[in-house]
Amino acid sequence: MFMPKTSNSLVEILRQRRQRLASLIDFPAILWSGSSNPRNFPANVFPFRASSHFLYFAGLPLPNAAIRLEAGKLELFMDDPQPSSALWHGEMPKREEIAQMIGADAAKPMSELEFLVAEAATIAVQDAATWTQQSQLLNRWVLPQNPPQGIDLELAKAVVALRLTHDAGALAELRQAAAVSVEAHKAGMSATLVAKREAEVRGAMEGVIIAQNMTTAYNSIVTVHGEVLHNEHYHHPLQPGDLLLADVGAETETGWAADITRTWPVSGKFSSTQRDIYDVVLAAHDACIAKIRPGVEYGEIHLLAATVIAEGLVNLGILQGNAEDLVQRDAHALFFPHGIGHLLGLDVHDMEDLGDLAGYEEGRKRSDRFGLGYLRLNRPLRPGMLVTIEPGFYQVPAILNDGQNRSTYQYTVNWERLSQFADVRGIRIEDDVLVTDEGSEVLTAALPNDANAVEELIG
Amino acid sequence: MFMPKTSNSLVEILRQRRQRLASLIDFPAILWSGSSNPRNFPANVFPFRASSHFLYFAGLPLPNAAIRLEAGKLELFMDDPQPSSALWHGEMPKREEIAQMIGADAAKPMSELEFLVAEAATIAVQDAATWTQQSQLLNRWVLPQNPPQGIDLELAKAVVALRLTHDAGALAELRQAAAVSVEAHKAGMSATLVAKREAEVRGAMEGVIIAQNMTTAYNSIVTVHGEVLHNEHYHHPLQPGDLLLADVGAETETGWAADITRTWPVSGKFSSTQRDIYDVVLAAHDACIAKIRPGVEYGEIHLLAATVIAEGLVNLGILQGNAEDLVQRDAHALFFPHGIGHLLGLDVHDMEDLGDLAGYEEGRKRSDRFGLGYLRLNRPLRPGMLVTIEPGFYQVPAILNDGQNRSTYQYTVNWERLSQFADVRGIRIEDDVLVTDEGSEVLTAALPNDANAVEELIG
Repeated sequence: MFMPKTSNSLVEILRQRRQRLASLIDFPAILWSGSSNPRNFPANVFPFRASSHFLYFAGLPLPNAAIRLEAGKLELFMDDPQPSSALWHGEMPKREEIAQMIGADAAKPMSELEFLVAEAATIAVQDAATWTQQSQLLNRWVLPQNPPQGIDLELAKAVVALRLTHDAGALAELRQAAAVSVEAHKAGMSATLVAKREAEVRGAMEGVIIAQNMTTAYNSIVTVHGEVLHNEHYHHPLQPGDLLLADVGAETETGWAADITRTWPVSGKFSSTQRDIYDVVLAAHDACIAKIRPGVEYGEIHLLAATVIAEGLVNLGILQGNAEDLVQRDAHALFFPHGIGHLLGLDVHDMEDLGDLAGYEEGRKRSDRFGLGYLRLNRPLRPGMLVTIEPGFYQVPAILNDGQNRSTYQYTVNWERLSQFADVRGIRIEDDVLVTDEGSEVLTAALPNDANAVEELIG
Repeated sequence: MFMPKTSNSLVEILRQRRQRLASLIDFPAILWSGSSNPRNFPANVFPFRASSHFLYFAGLPLPNAAIRLEAGKLELFMDDPQPSSALWHGEMPKREEIAQMIGADAAKPMSELEFLVAEAATIAVQDAATWTQQSQLLNRWVLPQNPPQGIDLELAKAVVALRLTHDAGALAELRQAAAVSVEAHKAGMSATLVAKREAEVRGAMEGVIIAQNMTTAYNSIVTVHGEVLHNEHYHHPLQPGDLLLADVGAETETGWAADITRTWPVSGKFSSTQRDIYDVVLAAHDACIAKIRPGVEYGEIHLLAATVIAEGLVNLGILQGNAEDLVQRDAHALFFPHGIGHLLGLDVHDMEDLGDLAGYEEGRKRSDRFGLGYLRLNRPLRPGMLVTIEPGFYQVPAILNDGQNRSTYQYTVNWERLSQFADVRGIRIEDDVLVTDEGSEVLTAALPNDANAVEELIG
């Protein structure tokens, strides 16, 4: 169990969060932290990651704990460690000490929770040991794969309402995650010229994150095959003409995430074709960020990215036609098949454990359209929301060699011209953007994304 | 899914393993690989780790797969990826290709497994999704926390008989894990003088492991509080008089582990008290390794370590009496409260998912004695076994301040003399030792453990 330094400000932040919750629901909520998942044998576990909903209200990653929130009060349930555990795990803070650190109104052993479950709502935790316990105690199935129902749905909506926009406590953590992720990317760029394969760049990047006592917020993507969107292989050699795509983000000790992607040339210099496409993606990235302000629909930002990319590809002779028409016909999605971004907070896809409850405004559903189906966020922007902006260009064989696409876009794509861009397999540029009252603030702005500046960082 | 390079030798190694299995059991065995554990939401998973028993016979970390072994034949069960997954995960090798890589006699979709479960034994996998599937398909509870029964127990014993000693294929992997772990420790030592807290040394060490496309075999211990045996905190500052204890090991891409501990001075120089105790621990380490050869009881090695430590502490004036008598009275366990080591293979505590089935010779049980209860291995050594040798000295407050211990050992410990060694909170020296026909080979010998040599590596 990790015990970060706490302060009165944590106590105050947590108090405000549960008071806001109390203004939205009039029934108790019980949130479990979760337990460690065994890896290959019971004592060899994956690093503990507390449930994000628990972290939001309890502030600390306490394993095997629960909190009960009612009318702005917080009760902490956890067992003190067995005396024998001091040998293996050291002297741990006692329940009462932790209760004080987080400003709990009461602290009780786990066994007392069963007497306080009446009318209580919850949110399923991911690990089986915990959702089994949740189901048993609440006497109904609480399963992470089932959408919440009844009061659980009401609780989930209330939590979404709170977590959608970030308070000062959250922002302080998110800025730290962003700062460390920026350093990790710089280290990755610096390591590239001497690295022989992807894993070495990844080692340099994650080494920085570990050195700051953080973890990665998600499994890193560090690949010369950026066209594979969730590529988690790191064994490819780095070859002079390759672009390296690195999507790596840190998570602070209390669970707050960053999410940054950069794409850079393994040789230290972009080829002219790579730079042409890179600049198209960067133009889309910059246009989107320039448009971010309260009231703007995130879906519009996505379409703006699509349009700028289509326009850029027309200018390069890869697409033929008018940008708006091309986007209407989803031609951009041949090369930019994912959404422009997502919510970011305690989860890298924030609150995705609740399906689209957080990402989609009530009453909205995912589109069936090829170019829109992967959009993870579809809401008007509000001050305090943190979103990623991550346009990309990919040559995915499964898309570009698809017979249906080949025929639909036979005259839309100049396939011969496209073949001259064979050294651009995948480019993505991703930053974390906070919606402010006036417009936006890029939390990851300390990491350059201009092609020249990136070349300079490689050295 | 990771696909390491395979060769005819993998096919041949796997064939030999299943033929050896067929010589021990006359019923079919089905081994599942397991599935990824969700972290904070379903799509954000912990890195996949295949079941070790599956890896032993299937050779590759294939998620959501199973193998059926009968009479030396291997059938592979897994589903080909959905066509849509190519966008996100790239083109994956098809079932038939994988079958060829591992020399399977047949390859079938997962749905066909249910027709081939009659009379089949299995071993529970750690993740709930998989043990649920095992239980459903075999129509009996297959739970990781339950000791195996009936044919499952027979299978487990047969697998233990095979995995207890390592074949050439296993040794090649284990040597790689050892070599990378050695480099990680060297990097940790080099990083120490400029590091400000534990996490920075950990980052340097794990960065090396990640750069080699490996993972850590267990959660690293990198701590100035070595007296906390399983300390997984990394936030303490490094201060001039501290000793840093690092227990860090790599795991190869196909799952084989190393396990190394070194303890070094944060300042670059041991104090005289630190060096005195360090040399006692090293003497125990060296004496144990010198004694390792086929036929020797591992329990005797443990007692030898205890005796050498007791003797060393008598010479330093910390313990009073005769070493053998002190060990009989468990006085050494005040400072060396754990076992001298354990089996090492695909798991860092090899086959600990089967309880003591692997560690303890049939008919033997754990001792109740304070000084012996944590012994994880109690068998006569045989050529091909890989064990750790990891003596230590710790000043654990929970042990040394315990009233019962204080009274039992009132005149055994020179408490005043002990107080002069306050700057030695925890020291452990751990290497991985292969039992050979002639004696032993230290797979981790490339990492110095002599106090002077360690000081030189710090720089």
